[in-house]
Amino acid sequence: MSVTTWAPVPHGSPFGVQTLPYGVFSVWGGPRRTGVRIGDHVLDLAAVAGTPAGDGLPADVGAALAGPSLDALLAQGRDGWAAARRWVTDVLTDPGAQTWASEHLRPLTDVRLHLPFTVADYVDFYSSEHHAANVGRLFRPDAEPLLPNWKRLPVGYHGRAGTVVVSGTDVVRPCGQVKPADAPEPQFGPSRRLDIEAEVGFVVGTPSPLGEPVPASALPDHVFGVVLVNDWSARDIQAWEYVPLGPFLGKSFATSVSAWVTPLEALEAARVPPPPRTHELLPYLRDDPDQPWGLDLDLEVVWNGTVVARPPFASMYWTAAQQLAHLTVNGATLRTGDLFASGTVSGPQRDQRGSFLELSWGGQDPVRLADGSLRTFLEDGDEVVITATAPGPEGTRVGLGEVRGRILPPRC
Amino acid sequence: MSVTTWAPVPHGSPFGVQTLPYGVFSVWGGPRRTGVRIGDHVLDLAAVAGTPAGDGLPADVGAALAGPSLDALLAQGRDGWAAARRWVTDVLTDPGAQTWASEHLRPLTDVRLHLPFTVADYVDFYSSEHHAANVGRLFRPDAEPLLPNWKRLPVGYHGRAGTVVVSGTDVVRPCGQVKPADAPEPQFGPSRRLDIEAEVGFVVGTPSPLGEPVPASALPDHVFGVVLVNDWSARDIQAWEYVPLGPFLGKSFATSVSAWVTPLEALEAARVPPPPRTHELLPYLRDDPDQPWGLDLDLEVVWNGTVVARPPFASMYWTAAQQLAHLTVNGATLRTGDLFASGTVSGPQRDQRGSFLELSWGGQDPVRLADGSLRTFLEDGDEVVITATAPGPEGTRVGLGEVRGRILPPRC
Repeated sequence: MSVTTWAPVPHGSPFGVQTLPYGVFSVWGGPRRTGVRIGDHVLDLAAVAGTPAGDGLPADVGAALAGPSLDALLAQGRDGWAAARRWVTDVLTDPGAQTWASEHLRPLTDVRLHLPFTVADYVDFYSSEHHAANVGRLFRPDAEPLLPNWKRLPVGYHGRAGTVVVSGTDVVRPCGQVKPADAPEPQFGPSRRLDIEAEVGFVVGTPSPLGEPVPASALPDHVFGVVLVNDWSARDIQAWEYVPLGPFLGKSFATSVSAWVTPLEALEAARVPPPPRTHELLPYLRDDPDQPWGLDLDLEVVWNGTVVARPPFASMYWTAAQQLAHLTVNGATLRTGDLFASGTVSGPQRDQRGSFLELSWGGQDPVRLADGSLRTFLEDGDEVVITATAPGPEGTRVGLGEVRGRILPPRC
Repeated sequence: MSVTTWAPVPHGSPFGVQTLPYGVFSVWGGPRRTGVRIGDHVLDLAAVAGTPAGDGLPADVGAALAGPSLDALLAQGRDGWAAARRWVTDVLTDPGAQTWASEHLRPLTDVRLHLPFTVADYVDFYSSEHHAANVGRLFRPDAEPLLPNWKRLPVGYHGRAGTVVVSGTDVVRPCGQVKPADAPEPQFGPSRRLDIEAEVGFVVGTPSPLGEPVPASALPDHVFGVVLVNDWSARDIQAWEYVPLGPFLGKSFATSVSAWVTPLEALEAARVPPPPRTHELLPYLRDDPDQPWGLDLDLEVVWNGTVVARPPFASMYWTAAQQLAHLTVNGATLRTGDLFASGTVSGPQRDQRGSFLELSWGGQDPVRLADGSLRTFLEDGDEVVITATAPGPEGTRVGLGEVRGRILPPRC
């Protein structure tokens, strides 16, 4: 988009008017307000809607933007999302609106960002073939790396919605039961194999009724946008607990999401075909090749300031559209605020792996950081930042913000 | 309790003043209101609180009772729950209150019951040794029936909160992927092994902060009460999908709960020691033998009018107190409205098994109903009702209501 904005946007910033993610902020302990990011500022949407620049904003959308979270905007549905985005774009590109709107721009350094929406159900998929195969090789070295169901359906499970936290929230190292291979009984203590999972999450806006599956093609009707996700994982707790009912306490202590929700509309130029399928799929999982929902997002994982991986989201085997169709094919409802995440994003190369389990190959092959230190899993005080960008219109880049977290010492 | 009530209670009813479960009702499409069950009537709590009979009810508790769900009452905490129960008991036993309150009693046949609270996170445990061993024998006939972790920690996983429905809601037979052992590829279609799981659920009222484990002894500070649960399960969908991340679509289409939430306070006389432990437990999971949280609830499973099982909840290996301690030991928060269920309740005898998978031994040994028909798994039109009672004070019985559901034909 060669459209220019009157708002200050640093040269080359991926947060120009091609992006316009939504978030929730507060100033000096004041109430939570809905905002849109432009450059390194946030535009206070309720405040601008109350000026003459708010003319032309549909009343219900305006009311939704005045809430203390994105929940009401999510519930507006696709037409409301489009109307909000058109209006915000108009405000930021119309020189006449600058008079009213510019005083409602705040530097990001002056605001606190909050969890942008109320998470209803949280589902985590497992949709990177490279990740699933790496985990298979590490945990079941004598067997086929992928289980028989993996290429036939997007494997997933439910996580704990109540411990989804916003980027910047510190993560206390969890304690729990672990069972070293050579110990006769399990032991209690802090996790020693604390890991990240770099993921992309999809935020549901429009609900669906009980008993009515949602087709893959309806993704843009139901999904409002995208967040970055760090699905913190205590590998040692997980290894002991997870058979037969899946991950539980190894994951449920915290899941971090970016403060900014990037509208799906901002990712049109990032749509790419997913990798070729090696197995014929049942009809409900088939892609429309003319409407692909692979997304060419470039993730970056930064560990104490060192870039340790650049996972390519375009390499994901299962798309969000397929995940949505699978999640609802049994008649399960969608609710506003449902979050479903991709699972760890890992590409085929070593430096494209989105977990430290894979990067250090089960802890056998440490990762060297820029300060010379070696890491396998997370140490207390470590900080991890996951960012991503995507192609935008006319050669621009679209920024997906960041998800940041620091490890605090255990409390056991 | 030899205390008598002026309200009509059928002789021998388990819904006398010893019980007093809470629920949410509406009349002829009117607004949802909080009520307490007495006999076969519901007492409209907001209405009574607004009469002189409401004198002495703390203002915040009174406000909580005026809501359209139990959410505000749940958030009151243990003192508020006790105050509400004392007041309701006073109203129903004080002949002087009858003048004001009796006009706010409505026959259950005149009201519609609703999901009584907003489910935050839903966790399902797997805490019956007999059930876990039966499933192990059926699915892994050549191995030890219990996995090594089973006696060391209460195995559990997160389910879908958004599809928890109230008793009486019809359940559409789910469709999905199944993979018959002799088929080269999975097939899509209606589940043919649709099952129940008779369970008991615990409803969290008082939340807990991130990073702070809740000790087992704090159960009555955090848990408001108990519901009956039917965790509908499509065994064929589950069998194909669940390795390695656990049950997902085989469970997520519907989980039914009773409309009545029985306060934990009503179950004092039902507290019993759990079965003897065969393995020493890590300290955070140890019971206080003087404050046992086994519960002597007698469940009954009725299939199309025939009692097919009487699962004894007192046989559960892991208690709700241990489940609560485990669930939070990694620092995960509790939220008001969290629901954690026991897992299928199965006793040692065949007629004590709480799932049809077990009752029909994997479908090999059909169950005969009173009309002469044979069943393995659920057929369209079948109705299942799960009820339970428990010992109350002075020889009374405490009723836990019922969870009822009927199977509708698939939509695929």
